[in-house]
Amino acid sequence: MDYYSKQISQLIEELASLPGIGNKSAQRLAFHILNMPKERADRLAVTIQEARNNIRYCKTCCTLTDDEECPICKNSGRNHKTIMVVENARDLAAYEKTGQYDGVYHVLHGAISPMLGIGPNDIKLKELMKRLQGDVTEVIIATNSSLEGETTAMYISKLIKPTGIKVSRIASGVPVGGDLEYIDEVTLLRALEGRIEL
Amino acid sequence: MDYYSKQISQLIEELASLPGIGNKSAQRLAFHILNMPKERADRLAVTIQEARNNIRYCKTCCTLTDDEECPICKNSGRNHKTIMVVENARDLAAYEKTGQYDGVYHVLHGAISPMLGIGPNDIKLKELMKRLQGDVTEVIIATNSSLEGETTAMYISKLIKPTGIKVSRIASGVPVGGDLEYIDEVTLLRALEGRIEL
Repeated sequence: MDYYSKQISQLIEELASLPGIGNKSAQRLAFHILNMPKERADRLAVTIQEARNNIRYCKTCCTLTDDEECPICKNSGRNHKTIMVVENARDLAAYEKTGQYDGVYHVLHGAISPMLGIGPNDIKLKELMKRLQGDVTEVIIATNSSLEGETTAMYISKLIKPTGIKVSRIASGVPVGGDLEYIDEVTLLRALEGRIEL
Repeated sequence: MDYYSKQISQLIEELASLPGIGNKSAQRLAFHILNMPKERADRLAVTIQEARNNIRYCKTCCTLTDDEECPICKNSGRNHKTIMVVENARDLAAYEKTGQYDGVYHVLHGAISPMLGIGPNDIKLKELMKRLQGDVTEVIIATNSSLEGETTAMYISKLIKPTGIKVSRIASGVPVGGDLEYIDEVTLLRALEGRIEL
């Protein structure tokens, strides 16, 4: 990219290193930023730095937050006896968007993966077990439906069962609106196994 | 997004305001940035600020650069007698990628558009005319093949013709590898009009 001057090339490279942003998009973004009013570009840069500098784990549920406790854990209107276990903060957001879940969460920041060398101690599992010493009636495991997610779900359920706390797993099956024709066999079998009487 | 803490929401909003980045991508980018080592996030922020702060127009061709003159205008190995006129710096980059053009450029930063109220004085046209007082033998107009691009090309060619300098326009027609079936009528007619004897 020697047809761009040095700082422009650097900006394009930095942007292209972000996930899901190819070289074309990075160029488009770079020129968009270069054409911004100076204050807008400053605000973008400062927001990135401040968010990154102040980020930490919520002391209760381990989600990423800029405060000691996240907005959900702070909310006394929620049911703190039900904990949904998710792999990351975006999965939490996905369930929040449904607007139908009133319990709290626990964010593992990953899933157990022998392949990648990620064991139970590499995710926020100890923190979850500590929470269960309090007043908790149900743990809903909402890890992904991948090999790692399922392994993690199994591991956690075995760990919790002896405590007598109810453990459940979100259902897997055919997505609503999904066309059977395009759905993989494993999902189809899961949907069959998990069938409910009408 | 009240399930995210304030600074995370702000970061997502800032990112989602960039072109081509929807809410889902903004969330993914935000968490990617939050999980970066601090130095990487700082470098991203500083690169944005520095590039934006130092950006200016090349004193010769008006492209965006961080120096007085851009790398292409500085390059004595290029043919400075041929000027290709483009609408913006990304169009310049597109021609540079071909690796076959050895002339220099002039970046208009826009195109004449009566609809949007952009007149000849709102683009870098005066700067182009000033360059033509030097030793220039050909001006190749490579504005887009849109209504605005064509209007601008016509306007510039009328302006230059009296000076005796050769003016040309890049060809429009069927893109290489393009399937006639899917090409619009205007392009097909252009390709017909511009046919060359074999």
